Amino acid sequence: MKLIEGGVCAAKGFKASGVHCGIRKNKTKRDIALIVSEKKANAAAVYTTNLVKGAPLLVTKSHISDGYAQAIICNSGNANTCNANGIEVAEQMSALLASELGISEKDVVVASTGVIGQPLNLEPIANGIPSLVKELKADGTDNAAEGIMTTDTVKKIVAVEFEIGGKTCRIGGIAKGSGMIHPNMATMLVFITSDVAISTPMLQKALSFDIQNTFNMVSVDGDTSTNDMVTILANGLAGNKEITEENEDYKIFMEALNTVMVQLCRLIAGDGEGATKLLECKVDGAKDIKTAKTVAKSVICSSLLKAAMFGADANWGRVLCAIGYSGADVDVNKIDVSFKSIKGEIAVCKNGAGVEFSEEIAKEILLEKEIDILISLNSGEASSVAWGCDLTYDYVKINGDYRT
Amino acid sequence: MKLIEGGVCAAKGFKASGVHCGIRKNKTKRDIALIVSEKKANAAAVYTTNLVKGAPLLVTKSHISDGYAQAIICNSGNANTCNANGIEVAEQMSALLASELGISEKDVVVASTGVIGQPLNLEPIANGIPSLVKELKADGTDNAAEGIMTTDTVKKIVAVEFEIGGKTCRIGGIAKGSGMIHPNMATMLVFITSDVAISTPMLQKALSFDIQNTFNMVSVDGDTSTNDMVTILANGLAGNKEITEENEDYKIFMEALNTVMVQLCRLIAGDGEGATKLLECKVDGAKDIKTAKTVAKSVICSSLLKAAMFGADANWGRVLCAIGYSGADVDVNKIDVSFKSIKGEIAVCKNGAGVEFSEEIAKEILLEKEIDILISLNSGEASSVAWGCDLTYDYVKINGDYRT
Repeated sequence: MKLIEGGVCAAKGFKASGVHCGIRKNKTKRDIALIVSEKKANAAAVYTTNLVKGAPLLVTKSHISDGYAQAIICNSGNANTCNANGIEVAEQMSALLASELGISEKDVVVASTGVIGQPLNLEPIANGIPSLVKELKADGTDNAAEGIMTTDTVKKIVAVEFEIGGKTCRIGGIAKGSGMIHPNMATMLVFITSDVAISTPMLQKALSFDIQNTFNMVSVDGDTSTNDMVTILANGLAGNKEITEENEDYKIFMEALNTVMVQLCRLIAGDGEGATKLLECKVDGAKDIKTAKTVAKSVICSSLLKAAMFGADANWGRVLCAIGYSGADVDVNKIDVSFKSIKGEIAVCKNGAGVEFSEEIAKEILLEKEIDILISLNSGEASSVAWGCDLTYDYVKINGDYRT
Repeated sequence: MKLIEGGVCAAKGFKASGVHCGIRKNKTKRDIALIVSEKKANAAAVYTTNLVKGAPLLVTKSHISDGYAQAIICNSGNANTCNANGIEVAEQMSALLASELGISEKDVVVASTGVIGQPLNLEPIANGIPSLVKELKADGTDNAAEGIMTTDTVKKIVAVEFEIGGKTCRIGGIAKGSGMIHPNMATMLVFITSDVAISTPMLQKALSFDIQNTFNMVSVDGDTSTNDMVTILANGLAGNKEITEENEDYKIFMEALNTVMVQLCRLIAGDGEGATKLLECKVDGAKDIKTAKTVAKSVICSSLLKAAMFGADANWGRVLCAIGYSGADVDVNKIDVSFKSIKGEIAVCKNGAGVEFSEEIAKEILLEKEIDILISLNSGEASSVAWGCDLTYDYVKINGDYRT
């Protein structure tokens, strides 16, 4: 397996585009994106667990209930959520696109991201759809990735190439996510495409499984959004024998999918609102996987620890504190903690108590952009990883006046 | 019932003091506090639910297991937690004080607050205890309140006077708490004194009950500390008939205790690390009390909403979002939301969807220092209140480099 260029257009038969249609005032920012497969694809999705669900999610869920989709349309700048006419607008958005593409509106995945509770004006979208379709290109992933950005500062694009049964296959994805990101959700907006032939039930199974260890282990701010969704379209153009059971081919597919999803997780966490650092919390020695996950999530979500990481302060007591209130059943007196970056690794806590360490070396390690928080519970064999970011002045700045 | 001066010294027979003993480098900051009752008092306490518990809590729990205490000693600057010799140091701290006061060390409540995981040096405490005892005064509550402060910016002191059976009674308290504060804990450091005659079991019952609606409904940053504790000492010097059951006198006591605790909650939340605003989230119309509490807590804990409040931005979508992921069983389409301050009240959401409102008036309301977030679930009779604060640049600053 190797990383390749192309994002959502890396897989055979996919084109993408992104244009400015006028939802946002800033005319230099693309605010709507489109991804289209040349043939109908098998489709799977997972959705936010928030009880308040964006209207587009409800419409998408209905559309792909037959297991198929061919196009994905997503606007940024307005979440189309908590609006009296939300469903109607999302359905019209689908219908307009379907008509322009000459496909069924039931084959459209529709998504929106941005501010909640302000009616989404259909007019700019209706005006933008023709050029969105006209702009579709085999190298359009960059424009699509920009079209779905809100407070994101970087485009999140990844693709891999691998072989199944002698056939070259690809999986690629783009993601949007910077704030309102937290575990226990179906996650931020992620669109994944593949040319692998795989049945809809197996596609859903693979996605639902991998989500547990990837997007559900990401937290930027503890707020689970109303509009999170991960969708995957697989059009089968790679020509492999269709995957319909958990065989060797399925394992290869799962590994490739996991690679794409982990990479998107890292991109999302590292680009958390205001973030200066990507934090990776790795827990091992847990008595079971649930304990490992609970501990990793609790630590990655601690505002106090996140602020300490911003300050490159090796305040490991906050790690212990977050483990302690996580609700996980751990033996505090067996916990070891280290901090690690490309500058090296430093042990700060052994058996639940502090060890002497050089604050200077710790500082040097923590001043890097990617920090690993390593926790050994020394009580079993299970492990887990969670991704997050530091808490900074800019997080407050971005969210103190998001709507203006 | 009326609010009076005197804090923990308002009740008959209590004296307090606070001095600088040298745990902190800043010599102008008192770093240790003492509260003493002239006679042994009935004692009750609640402790943090964090699995990682500060050594002083374990020692206090053992000391008051017989239902009595006479003195409270508390240092700031070091939490004496996650240290190999923590229990030993907390026991020595108690023993040294007991010896100086001529009481049993079993009658000492010991507490520490500050950084976790750095050994607490007993020497400055041993040197400070004689002057701490010498300084005991009937108007010493201010010094004691200062002695327990960490990142607090104001002293938190309250007292009330009321009558039980014709006898004048008092309850007073001091509190410390600014960061690492979150619901579902026994709470921050709070020391309450009273001259009411009430049995230990009834005292514990009253405290444990009232905690659920007061300190457990406060959140500054979602981090449940390792050292939180609320203790109450009641020495009976008011001369009322001892309260030993849930009678009318108990109700009067409960009302007075609740007044003291609510006031301390507001002081703690409003002085949250970096806070510029006190937020009060009032939920009504819930189908049951659990739902009301879950919703109120979730909203008050939302980093996104807290940042919006800092920016005086009426971003009510974040309120809906936080209700939606709270896990509470609510009908989203029945939710109404308003913001309120001394400048007035403005409705922003009706039946789960936005209503038109003046952004200018909303801004004017939200620029005040005390903001009410009013949520009506319109599905029942239960209500709840939670207290918190906004998320600001200074929270990040304070916690980015707390240890230096």
